Amino acid sequence: MSDHRFALVDWGTTSFRLWLVDAAGEVVARANGREGMTYAVRQGFENVLERHLAQTGAPSGLPVLICGMAGARQGWREAAYVETPAPLAQLVDRSVMVDSRLGDIRILPGISHGDPAMPSVMRGEETQLLGLGTAQGKTLVCMPGTHCKWVEIEDGIVSRFSTFLTGELFDVLSTYSILQHAVEKGDTVANDVFRSAVRIAGAAPELVWTRLFALRASQLLGQMERADGAAHLSGLLIGAEIAAARRLHGGGSKFVLVASGPLAALYRSALADEGFEFRHMDADDAALSGLLRAARSIWPERMAE
Amino acid sequence: MSDHRFALVDWGTTSFRLWLVDAAGEVVARANGREGMTYAVRQGFENVLERHLAQTGAPSGLPVLICGMAGARQGWREAAYVETPAPLAQLVDRSVMVDSRLGDIRILPGISHGDPAMPSVMRGEETQLLGLGTAQGKTLVCMPGTHCKWVEIEDGIVSRFSTFLTGELFDVLSTYSILQHAVEKGDTVANDVFRSAVRIAGAAPELVWTRLFALRASQLLGQMERADGAAHLSGLLIGAEIAAARRLHGGGSKFVLVASGPLAALYRSALADEGFEFRHMDADDAALSGLLRAARSIWPERMAE
Repeated sequence: MSDHRFALVDWGTTSFRLWLVDAAGEVVARANGREGMTYAVRQGFENVLERHLAQTGAPSGLPVLICGMAGARQGWREAAYVETPAPLAQLVDRSVMVDSRLGDIRILPGISHGDPAMPSVMRGEETQLLGLGTAQGKTLVCMPGTHCKWVEIEDGIVSRFSTFLTGELFDVLSTYSILQHAVEKGDTVANDVFRSAVRIAGAAPELVWTRLFALRASQLLGQMERADGAAHLSGLLIGAEIAAARRLHGGGSKFVLVASGPLAALYRSALADEGFEFRHMDADDAALSGLLRAARSIWPERMAE
Repeated sequence: MSDHRFALVDWGTTSFRLWLVDAAGEVVARANGREGMTYAVRQGFENVLERHLAQTGAPSGLPVLICGMAGARQGWREAAYVETPAPLAQLVDRSVMVDSRLGDIRILPGISHGDPAMPSVMRGEETQLLGLGTAQGKTLVCMPGTHCKWVEIEDGIVSRFSTFLTGELFDVLSTYSILQHAVEKGDTVANDVFRSAVRIAGAAPELVWTRLFALRASQLLGQMERADGAAHLSGLLIGAEIAAARRLHGGGSKFVLVASGPLAALYRSALADEGFEFRHMDADDAALSGLLRAARSIWPERMAE
C-alpha cells in the first residue's frame, strides 16, 4: 500500500502539473498535462483534477494543495492577492478552501504589487519563491518564462516586483509579425549570435524597438542567415529585459535565477555576460519545494518528522 | 472623351491604390482595394491591375507607374533597392519595366540602408519622400504606419533611416498577447490617457518592456478601465518610438510628419508634447505627388507644360 500524504498541483494558464507526496516529502507519482486554466474553465476544474488524481493512483479523499491560475478570478475559486509588502509565510494563512466532492482542497493566493507607477501581479511564482527558502537580507530573484518576473525579497517579505512579456513577445513576434519570415521555430541556444544580441540590447535597450525591424532587414540584405534569426531575437528581448530590470531593481543583493530547460541556459549565459553573479535553482524543483513547504504547514499531522 | 495620361499605383503589402491622372496632373478617377502584394502573389499582379484599370475606365495601353511591394523580390518584378546615400532623383532612373500585355508598365525601386549596425529597407515610402519636394539642407521625416520610418534627407539625398514596428506591435499585442484582455479594438484618439503614456514612455523608453504587463496588471487591480487600454498601449509604443528615434536621428533639422487619418492625429499630439516642431503632410497626398513627379520625369511628352 502506498503512503500518499497529499497531492500538490501547479495549475498554470496552459499547463497542469501534479505530484503525489509521501510522509517523507518524497514524490511517489507525478502527472503533467496541457489542462491549464484555459482548458479547465471549459471542462471544469474539479473534473480535470479528479481525472489526474485517479490516473496517478491517489487514494480517495487525499488532501490537495494548489497554486497558480486556479486561484484567479476566472479560475476555480478566487484566492485574493496578498499585497506587497507580502510575507511569504502569509501565503499559507491566506489560502482558500474549495468546496469540492473530492475532499480537502486548498488554493494558495498570488501576490500583487499595487504601486500605481508600476503595478504587477503574480500567481504561481510566489510558491516558487516560498520554495527558495530565502535567508535573511535582501535577495533579487529572476524568474524567466512567458511573463518573466524580477522579484525583490527582504527578510522573507516580497517588497516589489516587475513583469516582462519577454517570452510572449518572442512567441507573438515570431508567429504573427513580419519577423515570422526571419525566425525559425525551435529551441534557441546560447550561441555567439544570441550573446552578441544580448550585448547590443543591453548597451541601448531603448533602441531594441528599431532593432526588431533591423533583424528582418539584415536578412533581406544578406547580412544574416534566417537560421540565426531566433537566437538574435531572443538575445535582443532578453538583453532589453535584463537592462531594464537592472535599472528597476539595482544590485547589492544576493541574486537567484529560477528557471528550467532551454530558458535556463539562455538566462544563465545572458546574466553571466552582463556581469551578474547568481545561483541557479530549477523552477520545477522550486515549485514542488514551495508547495511541499506550504502543505507541511497546513497539514503538519500528515508529515513524518 | 477623357484625357487620361497615365495610371499611378501605390501597391502595398495589404493595400492597392490607383489614380488616373490627366495632362494637368489632376486625378480623374481613383480606386482603393485590399489586393495588396499578399493577394496579388496568388491572383497575379497583372490580373489585379487589369481589373482595376478596366473598372476605372482607363483606356487600353495607358502607361502605368507603380511603387511599393510590387517591386519586392516576391512581388511582380524586382526593382532592386537604391542604396543609401540615395538621391531621390535616382528613383526614376532605377525604375524597371515590366513585360506585360497591358503596355508600358514601370515599377519604382525601394531604398536600402545597409549599415550593419542598423540596417533597414523601405518600399513605397521613398515615393512619398519624392512627393515631399524637400528643399536643400537637412530634413528629418517621420512616417507612421505598420512599420514606421524615420528618414534623414540631406540636399535631396536619403542618407540614413530606421524602422519601428510600432503599428504592428500594437496589432499583434492587442490581438494575440495577454494584452488582448486589456485593449479594446477601434481607433485610438489623442486623449489624456494617450498623452500621459507618451510622456511616461518618453521619460524611460527602456522601461516600456515592463510597462506592457503593468497595463494589464493595473486593470486587474482596478487602477485602470479597460476602455483606456488602447490609448495607453498606443501611447507607450509611440512614446518609446519617438524617444529612440530622437536618440538615433537627433535634432537640428527641418522636420516633417507624413501621415494620414487617426495615426496622424496621434503622432501630431505626441510629437508636439515631446517638443518637436514640424509641418504635417498627408501621406496619401505625398504618395500621389511622388508618383506624379516620377511619371512626369519618365514620360515628359505626356504632360502639359
